[in-house]
Amino acid sequence: MKININILNELKNLVPDNNWLEQKKDIEPYLKEERGKFTGISPLLLKPSNTDQVSNIVKYCFSNNLSLVPQGGRTGLCGGAVPSNKGNEIMISLEKLNKIREIDRNGSYITAESGCILSDIQSIAKKSSRFFPLSLASEGSCTIGGNISTNAGGVNVLKYGMTRELVLGLEVVFANGKIWNGLRSIKKDNRGYSLKNLFIGAEGTLGIITACVLKLFPFPKNKETAIVALENPKKIMDFYNLSFDEYGDLINAFELNSSLGMEIVKNNIDNTKNPFNTNYPWYLIIEMSSSYSHNLKQRMNDLLIKADKKKIILNAIQAQNISQASEIWKTREFLNEAQKKEGASIKHDISIPINSIEIFIKKAVEKISNYLPGAKTLVFGHFADGNLHFNIGQPNNISKDNFIKKTKDVNNIVFELVKNMNGSFSAEHGIGQLKKNELREFSPSEEINAMKLIKESLDPKNIMNPGKII
Amino acid sequence: MKININILNELKNLVPDNNWLEQKKDIEPYLKEERGKFTGISPLLLKPSNTDQVSNIVKYCFSNNLSLVPQGGRTGLCGGAVPSNKGNEIMISLEKLNKIREIDRNGSYITAESGCILSDIQSIAKKSSRFFPLSLASEGSCTIGGNISTNAGGVNVLKYGMTRELVLGLEVVFANGKIWNGLRSIKKDNRGYSLKNLFIGAEGTLGIITACVLKLFPFPKNKETAIVALENPKKIMDFYNLSFDEYGDLINAFELNSSLGMEIVKNNIDNTKNPFNTNYPWYLIIEMSSSYSHNLKQRMNDLLIKADKKKIILNAIQAQNISQASEIWKTREFLNEAQKKEGASIKHDISIPINSIEIFIKKAVEKISNYLPGAKTLVFGHFADGNLHFNIGQPNNISKDNFIKKTKDVNNIVFELVKNMNGSFSAEHGIGQLKKNELREFSPSEEINAMKLIKESLDPKNIMNPGKII
Repeated sequence: MKININILNELKNLVPDNNWLEQKKDIEPYLKEERGKFTGISPLLLKPSNTDQVSNIVKYCFSNNLSLVPQGGRTGLCGGAVPSNKGNEIMISLEKLNKIREIDRNGSYITAESGCILSDIQSIAKKSSRFFPLSLASEGSCTIGGNISTNAGGVNVLKYGMTRELVLGLEVVFANGKIWNGLRSIKKDNRGYSLKNLFIGAEGTLGIITACVLKLFPFPKNKETAIVALENPKKIMDFYNLSFDEYGDLINAFELNSSLGMEIVKNNIDNTKNPFNTNYPWYLIIEMSSSYSHNLKQRMNDLLIKADKKKIILNAIQAQNISQASEIWKTREFLNEAQKKEGASIKHDISIPINSIEIFIKKAVEKISNYLPGAKTLVFGHFADGNLHFNIGQPNNISKDNFIKKTKDVNNIVFELVKNMNGSFSAEHGIGQLKKNELREFSPSEEINAMKLIKESLDPKNIMNPGKII
Repeated sequence: MKININILNELKNLVPDNNWLEQKKDIEPYLKEERGKFTGISPLLLKPSNTDQVSNIVKYCFSNNLSLVPQGGRTGLCGGAVPSNKGNEIMISLEKLNKIREIDRNGSYITAESGCILSDIQSIAKKSSRFFPLSLASEGSCTIGGNISTNAGGVNVLKYGMTRELVLGLEVVFANGKIWNGLRSIKKDNRGYSLKNLFIGAEGTLGIITACVLKLFPFPKNKETAIVALENPKKIMDFYNLSFDEYGDLINAFELNSSLGMEIVKNNIDNTKNPFNTNYPWYLIIEMSSSYSHNLKQRMNDLLIKADKKKIILNAIQAQNISQASEIWKTREFLNEAQKKEGASIKHDISIPINSIEIFIKKAVEKISNYLPGAKTLVFGHFADGNLHFNIGQPNNISKDNFIKKTKDVNNIVFELVKNMNGSFSAEHGIGQLKKNELREFSPSEEINAMKLIKESLDPKNIMNPGKII
């Protein structure tokens, strides 16, 4: 059903300076997920430049039963910011809400509008010698509103938590167009239900986040990197326990890689090598960092020597300078790119209790091998977060198409195991359109029902990003 | 309206072994808040001993439109666990749901039923050399279900966060009686709305928490305590900045006291003294702790020397042993007791942005002195959390009754200031019955409306702890 032209004109009048797009060529980039997995149709994209304009647009849509799809930097991987194919959804980009409203060095917080680019927030914090720890591959183009709406993870979760832990307060335009000023900078606040936590991770389905107050931290002064080689998942667990019992407050990365992962990086990416020059079954990159003077070099050395004495590790290299550290990190950072060159793969972003990782790897590899002989199972990820990337590479003996057709079956094998181990089939990427079916299949029905009730209560006309999550 | 005797009998049949109370003398302790500020009436208290029994009770109440008041250790200060005076509410005590279901040392979590006593959870964690940081005055009798339902604070918030930050997963009986198993131990989980965060701090108005998964930490190995004397709030802020910029990850207490506070402790509590033997305008107790070996003694010493060189502090004493540390802590811990002996007081548990504390103290003291000349304003609290206790002591020239009559006016003065500074009138104690009016008066109306919508959606018959919060 097309939207009446008068309505479109009235909507355009709600944003000054012609801050809207409607021509196919202009609007096209906003209609698709960056890898092309999702595309949609929409007659109009609005770019309000302040919260009142957002409020006016939502009020208008609420009165006229029009659906809205909010957009940030459009870097999400689950299609949460892409409209449907019906053509009856208005898109609203928050990119012009990009002001830093306040930065308070003493209070260690920053108040930013939701269209601010993540890397800009990092830079502005740095200028006040403060650290905003959220960091991910797309930080140069993703927006903080999108990060909050998807509860983004990234590389500093172990030490600083997910985005949820970094948000002190929110300003939100509700589905009825009213503005909620929840821009609080206080850490202790027990005044009724935590609305803030409901909008974080709601992927724009309950309201539109227009601004936020974010926690800042002292800037990390120093860093120490090492890579260790290990025999089996049991030893990985032993090394995890030793590290976190003795140095838990210093460790900010604890990244798993496997023999296969090291091989494919070495074979497919220029200027990479196995730092040990010999192959081991498993690898862990460990990084310590601190905003304070804790003599990290000595501490990392102590840890490695202890692990060696206890025969937990097979070998270890402590980076002696930045270039050695960067060489070590390359073997982890280029894993995705290297795997692409090996053929198609079916990827999973799962989290499981750390204690179950050993048995999960054993069972999952076994089940996948039985179902799809010759499949190359690549296991790596944020071990200490319990967050594994479990990617199944195309076997040599079947075509790409036939392999991709098996996605549903492969997912079921992996997600059933994850469910039985009380894990999550979506650790950091969210639900969007991509994992709606999985949410229904692998979540308790009471949970889905409660989510539906909440959605209906806060968005009774289902105009906020319909068709996403539930 | 009285509840029909047949209904009461059917309810009793839902708990085996006569685990219910109805005689006035038996039930009386469950009908009041411990200081006697709130009392209610109820014909029946049920003590289910597992989640299924809780579910059966709630299902029955849902079908029969009966209200339920859930109770933990009944140590809350806002009357959240006390029934109304109507006599038509059934009480449900979770005290028999007191099993530890699992403790996982490697995974660093414990699964406990909601009736477990807080100090029992601490002890069981300690036996596995793990630390559960939630700690408060009532820890020997409060239950973890109550702690979660009120998002309790306590003495370790600065380093470990409020209860909310310590909860990984929940099991909840919804208002329709269905059991939601959200007992997750994973740290990363982006599957739709965060239901967990909605039940935390909801004071039993949305459902009954029956079990939880809690985060555990390495046990702190060492501790270092000092007290410093300061000239004015500006210097307190300078000392805060110096401390947290350089040693932020080590500091676990940063407690403010004032000249008046030190005086009344010394005068009213046996075996206490001003550690400096001379009076200063302000005092801060600072404690460093660590689960790791960070040479705290030297670091505390470094901090104090730096602060002295920069002329931030007037004087400092670093405790040389445990008994000196305990002497320092007494001057803070006995403040409430000391103030009681000075006469009546009107107390506030507020939080404000740290940067505003200086101006808040100045303005609040001024306004209170104008309104109530001779009032002794006692300022102390968890400075680094922005959480102040701002207590107005009875002036010598008016009677206790006349003083207490001024509570509403005094609250208005304090809460208006707090509101203007974007703070909270309830930092850690919650709303319950005590602060319902304040919630309406000092919160944005959109926020109250959203809370009402959520309440109606998850508890459509308003049977879960009615009359609390909203």
